[in-house]
Amino acid sequence: MDERTGLPVVGMIGAGQLARMTHQAAIPLGQSLRLLAERADDGAALVAADVVVGDYRDPDVLRAFARGCDVVTFDHEHVPNDLIRALEADAVRVHPRASALRFAQDKRAMRERLTGLGVPCPRWAPVTSAEDVARFADDTGWPVVLKTARGGYDGKGVWVVADADEAAKIVALDAEFLVEEHVGIVRELAAVVARSPFGQGAAWPVVETVQRQGICVEVIAPAPDLDEEQAEEAQSLALRIAAELGVTGVLAVELFETADGLLVNELAMRPHNSAHWTIEGSRTSQFEQHLRAVLDYPLGDTTPTARVTVMANLLGGPEDVVPKGIDERVHHCMARWPDVKIHLYGKQFRPGRKVGHVTALGNDVATVRGRAASAAAYLMNGDTAS
Amino acid sequence: MDERTGLPVVGMIGAGQLARMTHQAAIPLGQSLRLLAERADDGAALVAADVVVGDYRDPDVLRAFARGCDVVTFDHEHVPNDLIRALEADAVRVHPRASALRFAQDKRAMRERLTGLGVPCPRWAPVTSAEDVARFADDTGWPVVLKTARGGYDGKGVWVVADADEAAKIVALDAEFLVEEHVGIVRELAAVVARSPFGQGAAWPVVETVQRQGICVEVIAPAPDLDEEQAEEAQSLALRIAAELGVTGVLAVELFETADGLLVNELAMRPHNSAHWTIEGSRTSQFEQHLRAVLDYPLGDTTPTARVTVMANLLGGPEDVVPKGIDERVHHCMARWPDVKIHLYGKQFRPGRKVGHVTALGNDVATVRGRAASAAAYLMNGDTAS
Repeated sequence: MDERTGLPVVGMIGAGQLARMTHQAAIPLGQSLRLLAERADDGAALVAADVVVGDYRDPDVLRAFARGCDVVTFDHEHVPNDLIRALEADAVRVHPRASALRFAQDKRAMRERLTGLGVPCPRWAPVTSAEDVARFADDTGWPVVLKTARGGYDGKGVWVVADADEAAKIVALDAEFLVEEHVGIVRELAAVVARSPFGQGAAWPVVETVQRQGICVEVIAPAPDLDEEQAEEAQSLALRIAAELGVTGVLAVELFETADGLLVNELAMRPHNSAHWTIEGSRTSQFEQHLRAVLDYPLGDTTPTARVTVMANLLGGPEDVVPKGIDERVHHCMARWPDVKIHLYGKQFRPGRKVGHVTALGNDVATVRGRAASAAAYLMNGDTAS
Repeated sequence: MDERTGLPVVGMIGAGQLARMTHQAAIPLGQSLRLLAERADDGAALVAADVVVGDYRDPDVLRAFARGCDVVTFDHEHVPNDLIRALEADAVRVHPRASALRFAQDKRAMRERLTGLGVPCPRWAPVTSAEDVARFADDTGWPVVLKTARGGYDGKGVWVVADADEAAKIVALDAEFLVEEHVGIVRELAAVVARSPFGQGAAWPVVETVQRQGICVEVIAPAPDLDEEQAEEAQSLALRIAAELGVTGVLAVELFETADGLLVNELAMRPHNSAHWTIEGSRTSQFEQHLRAVLDYPLGDTTPTARVTVMANLLGGPEDVVPKGIDERVHHCMARWPDVKIHLYGKQFRPGRKVGHVTALGNDVATVRGRAASAAAYLMNGDTAS
């Protein structure tokens, strides 16, 4: 409890853009997010008052950090599960709990659990050798998808493998693997929901996520022309997974839309790129909702504020530095697309790295997509073609 | 220029709720507001990373603070005008400039200037004695309104005076005074606009402000049943004042609606209580707009996001402390009014002090007003009557 405000203190482990946007959402709630940052110049550390710099893999650092918090939550899923369990054993309130987070940290555990629940997933198997992979491919055909059970993100730790030779090179790496069938995808969707410890659930409209080289570049809310029944199915599925796994906070369920229906691809238990559009596009943003959930407050209204909202990620260009004249670009972007909202994360630029996003709202999908994409391209490349 | 982000650094003098909400708006723009706080536990200082604690009346403190900023702006109008001029003489970019801010700091200068521009104001005169006041009242009749030229806010420094004896007691105080006619008010309105150094202007819809004992308790956007012509007149007037006075940033023009038309009451050159509704109720909040203006960025879209938005202030109750169980109240408020957005300022509670506000959006004025007022009453008093 913060005696100055009479409100509980929320600590977040990690100080990237998710923490940065969560801090922004914390301010009106009378909160000031407490951050465990890796570096003093992490995006969220640049804008928050209460920042501890330390290693989230160090149990002593975690314990000391948690001591000042009424509840601890996460900007990423890299904190070792046993360290989270140790915090819980020390009576620290952690959301999501280790027992739930496990399924976002370990893809084998996730597949096992979801399969057990009868949730539609791609066919999969745990593998330790190229022979295992080949045996799996006897059923599904090549190519197959090899994944590390832990530590992958943004397309890292995922390989589409054409044959047993390629598989052999990958499984030789020091990691645990699973293999999945390479499903024919119509498009990718995401169903994002929140769940509070009390058990209240809330869902945003199902969105389409557009990927390029394994990285989300664009999110369209709601997913255009999605069958209403399928949208409801996806929302129910996500709420059910949240309840069955005991998720607290935001849960993003990444889905494949296939000719035969929806399949669950991945789970994330934190605010997620596929719901950044909610900052402007929903009465309650995913960041406010995540805070409400981890504080066990009632969840907020998820009604959209516009017929169409499109978010386009800003991905670092070819150079490792902030583009010269970024301030000029922001200036011109605002002049050219006055309706587009800019979000910059204060992160160091690296090729392909998410350094911000833009959001456009309107009525017509093609127009709104065009405006978001053009603004994003201009901001990152100074490209004025569109 | 912040080398980490490639963006200019905005410094704000003062760290109250306006700075707090400006910092919130600064985060998506890639900014982190630099604050000159009076105390380390000022509302904005609790949530921002870059805080200097010092006295804004000390030229050395101001100069040192400004050194790290590309542009300096204000959370309040209490910085002595000559100190702002001194900063400008040191080539510090300040918005609004001292030459404009003067008219928000000195009501005599403001009345003189507006009268010179032909802007409709209540009849007024500078006064130094009870005789001056009585002479003025010979024309207008009693009561009259006595004001200190400088330093008043939230009804402080303003007296409705019934006769010369009462006037004598007030003008005996050590201050400069002006007297104004006591106009018959239908209601109070506010026209809030922004203007950039480049000269671009943008206006939000004209709002009704409901006052109780000189303190704004509620803002209804747009002002219900306001004649369209009068609304346009008010917006044009505010934009004209901004241009003529060279205002940069947000300008709030407080207006009296009278049977004979609109009269200007006061000016504020900073984000203003009468536009807090824009955080949820407009595509661009006044806080983002103020930042855009002082950065000389193009101004944002001021389109409303709902037909009706109502803001109700949270005013500290009878006790000097944070109410016990404020966290429980926030919890129940969210459950009872899921659509109402809560804003807490992290300020110390004092009777009548603005410690937060709530915002409700919808279609029907009476319903939205009721929800905002009930939520505010419940949060401050635990009053569940409504």
